[in-house]
Amino acid sequence: MHKVIYDTDPGVDDAMALLFLHRHPEIDLLGITTVFGNASVETTTRNALFLKREWDIPCPVAKGASVTFDPSRHERPWPTFVHGHNGLGDIEVPATIDLPTDPRPAYQFIIDTVRANPGEVRLVAVGRMTNLALALKHDPDIVRLVKDVVIMGGSFYVPGNVSPVAEANIHGDPEAADVVMTAAWNVVVIGLDVTAITTMSRGYLADMAKIGGEDVQLLNELSQSYIDFYKHAVDDGMMVHDSCASAYIVGPELFTSIKGPVRVVCGGIADGQTIVKPDGKHFPPGDWDNLPSQTVCTGIQSEKVVDLIRDTILGGASR
Amino acid sequence: MHKVIYDTDPGVDDAMALLFLHRHPEIDLLGITTVFGNASVETTTRNALFLKREWDIPCPVAKGASVTFDPSRHERPWPTFVHGHNGLGDIEVPATIDLPTDPRPAYQFIIDTVRANPGEVRLVAVGRMTNLALALKHDPDIVRLVKDVVIMGGSFYVPGNVSPVAEANIHGDPEAADVVMTAAWNVVVIGLDVTAITTMSRGYLADMAKIGGEDVQLLNELSQSYIDFYKHAVDDGMMVHDSCASAYIVGPELFTSIKGPVRVVCGGIADGQTIVKPDGKHFPPGDWDNLPSQTVCTGIQSEKVVDLIRDTILGGASR
Repeated sequence: MHKVIYDTDPGVDDAMALLFLHRHPEIDLLGITTVFGNASVETTTRNALFLKREWDIPCPVAKGASVTFDPSRHERPWPTFVHGHNGLGDIEVPATIDLPTDPRPAYQFIIDTVRANPGEVRLVAVGRMTNLALALKHDPDIVRLVKDVVIMGGSFYVPGNVSPVAEANIHGDPEAADVVMTAAWNVVVIGLDVTAITTMSRGYLADMAKIGGEDVQLLNELSQSYIDFYKHAVDDGMMVHDSCASAYIVGPELFTSIKGPVRVVCGGIADGQTIVKPDGKHFPPGDWDNLPSQTVCTGIQSEKVVDLIRDTILGGASR
Repeated sequence: MHKVIYDTDPGVDDAMALLFLHRHPEIDLLGITTVFGNASVETTTRNALFLKREWDIPCPVAKGASVTFDPSRHERPWPTFVHGHNGLGDIEVPATIDLPTDPRPAYQFIIDTVRANPGEVRLVAVGRMTNLALALKHDPDIVRLVKDVVIMGGSFYVPGNVSPVAEANIHGDPEAADVVMTAAWNVVVIGLDVTAITTMSRGYLADMAKIGGEDVQLLNELSQSYIDFYKHAVDDGMMVHDSCASAYIVGPELFTSIKGPVRVVCGGIADGQTIVKPDGKHFPPGDWDNLPSQTVCTGIQSEKVVDLIRDTILGGASR
């Protein structure tokens, strides 16, 4: 079993990835930690509790960061044109959900859970990297105790989505992402190089909903305006960014990757850009020297990943 | 006829591009301006005079910048492992050449020549952009009078060659390059996206030398250590970076491109990176807004370009 903590800012594609992690028979979802990003942390936490309730997810939800790792960064407006004003595509969601959150802040939940399961926990982080950076700050030793960190974020040899070079999750907290990427744990970076070419059509999701019952109906409903948003880039469908990271947990063979130290640009016109120095490529002494080599995904078998998402969510997966 | 000023830091691939410009029947080479980069400006100017003498090039040579546009940038060592200690692959070159340089500094030569040929001059710049930036600083109105600026530099959707994201010419003077890219003239950027896949083998060049006489023999000799250097990336051959820019002057149909404002990162870990915001792609308000749209080459018919170089240098070209 893969023991997973899911760090997330639901978020439409976050919701699909959550249902994947909840339903895959080889994944033991230990907890959900929330972070600001697609909406405020109050909203993303409410959404996590809402999805936990609707989908009968047993694990705890721990509320996380509300501001960037470096709090002097100025706020930007929430991406309501992507995930709706309520973070879940503006479907009807109660203002409050009558379920408790874990009493600990997200970073402490991560630290405690990692320490209780040494060498076993896989962190799947699909929002800004703030909670992970805070966990490292408060307990640097967890780098030795985490199995790996699978993040959705960044772009390497393809354009960004919030600037010509920056992807939203990383751009939303570059300092946190740089801390996470340069720490001495195993990071797998699943960025736009692979997620932007992994799309699910409206009809494919509708067909899933027809046979998946109420739970998948809910997923279908909350995804509709997100699919509308993607009309500039996808033919009546959506990029399933976060589910690619979930799929990696059980299907790493569906990805190809390169290895090398990764840094994040903090400030200037390239703010939030992720940069890898591939191992074996030599440059004059620079900012990538003596840093741990991470895994950067550069290829994906998109159709197989999308089918894996469907099969898992519909309960037929046993890889 | 294409009226060309060639701004260069010879430099091995610079030499090949110079012979191309000199020999193409539809190109009128108005002048050579030198800049520091592959070696000191004293060395690159000596080399330009040497090649002028050896190849009977009639146009003047004007000596240019010896330091970056922002002189507070600290110097880096010359890339002797690429172009040799003398900038021409360590073949024997006299310490001094008994030919005069133009009395004007390169930027003034550019300004005067552009003003004498309004709307006609094509600037082919294959070194650091310092001379061009200085020309713009001293006479901003030349933006209206230059036909276009074809530069070898930058990398967009491929790795850099002096850092994971930066190409040498731009990295050598990022502030100058940003001035050149954002000015209201037509810039065509020929970067590593196309030049790194445009290679000439040692045997191909040797065959050219066999039938090209002393001039091409010289080119062959000075290229040998450069070919040796490229063994990490090319199978017994070399990237012909600068000649791609020369070839664009007469063969733009051999390239595909995108359009959009281009900026250069100045400072930080991405120092010297070129970034294009493709026209039609929308991002939140940012550093590319309201800037002129430039042409960024992203595709090249490499074999045809290499054959064009050969045919031109061997005197058989008439496109």
